[in-house]
Amino acid sequence: MTPIITAFESSPDRGRGLARDMRVRWALEEVGQPYEVRLVSFAQMKQPAHLALNPFGQIPTYEEGDLALFETGSIILHIAERHPGLLPGDANARARAITWMFAAVNTVEPPIVELSMASMLERDQPWHAQRLPALENNIRKRLRELSAHLADAEWLDGAFSAGDIMMANVLLRAKGSGLLEEHPNLIAYLARAETRPAYQRAFAAQLKVFKDANP
Amino acid sequence: MTPIITAFESSPDRGRGLARDMRVRWALEEVGQPYEVRLVSFAQMKQPAHLALNPFGQIPTYEEGDLALFETGSIILHIAERHPGLLPGDANARARAITWMFAAVNTVEPPIVELSMASMLERDQPWHAQRLPALENNIRKRLRELSAHLADAEWLDGAFSAGDIMMANVLLRAKGSGLLEEHPNLIAYLARAETRPAYQRAFAAQLKVFKDANP
Repeated sequence: MTPIITAFESSPDRGRGLARDMRVRWALEEVGQPYEVRLVSFAQMKQPAHLALNPFGQIPTYEEGDLALFETGSIILHIAERHPGLLPGDANARARAITWMFAAVNTVEPPIVELSMASMLERDQPWHAQRLPALENNIRKRLRELSAHLADAEWLDGAFSAGDIMMANVLLRAKGSGLLEEHPNLIAYLARAETRPAYQRAFAAQLKVFKDANP
Repeated sequence: MTPIITAFESSPDRGRGLARDMRVRWALEEVGQPYEVRLVSFAQMKQPAHLALNPFGQIPTYEEGDLALFETGSIILHIAERHPGLLPGDANARARAITWMFAAVNTVEPPIVELSMASMLERDQPWHAQRLPALENNIRKRLRELSAHLADAEWLDGAFSAGDIMMANVLLRAKGSGLLEEHPNLIAYLARAETRPAYQRAFAAQLKVFKDANP
């Protein structure tokens, strides 16, 4: 059964891979699972039909027959449990890969999103400049810790896993901020992720959606 | 093998159940798994021995023989996979319960933590009052959506699950803010969680740690 995901009709990130469907597309490409995409407008995301799939009115959602899921971590874990390639076979290594999935969205992503939101919504406030150093330092702290953990390793914990999909996509949002660039090993980690053929297919697919909507 | 978790030597929340070990204690109590606790100071959390367990220097961590995990979502999922009672047997219902675990930490918790942090760190700034409505509205939006989803149900998706452990503990942090109190069904949901015997045992255990350290 071909799963159906939802994505922005016209993503506010202009197809830079920051919308959350990118992660799910990437996971599906890694395991070679074809999928369909249903595009939704911001208005549709607040309608009952979409809220029945995700009560928080966000994308992506994931439908597979009777099953409807939301939250990228949950969707990718579901995909990883049903296809080989995204979670190690060893039980302990598998549990650690799942740890990195949660660490990506619960520990590393929040300060990065907080800076994005402040830059969008508070840019014109006189105190924005005053808040900026603290916002950046919250990100610096997490990136420093992540960089120390990664050290010279290729991926976060042994072989490439769903944890790397989540973390690399979270780091993408910090790319170009100057903060990620303070850690050459994190830049190299993200570059390794971005050169994976599955990543490139997923990236091209989400970019095409934006370009088709904004010719 | 008895698992070992870490917790604050003296929790900054003064034993109100907001420290993240509460969730893990609760899950362990729900499944009847005895556990040991190693208390750590803030200084110890930044030392190599603790960073080897959690590169981000946070509590709780979870050790079980050779396995070391961090992130409450990952730890609780690990517990739930090894003991009956925290995840439904049906595959689709299980995937939905895991969705709620991610939704708790990735969608509902961030704005609640953001308000807590602003109230702690920016309270004396002249613009704190100016930011407050936006911070509160971010929480309001998520609670309104969650309340609409829950409606008259007892738990988030059928039977009580690990998703409810995560969500109820996230909501606890908003209790008394006036925001949670705008939704009687969420207040009742949290109260149902708090009256579970496993919750009460976990709560008493973490409170005792604080009281012992602050006689």
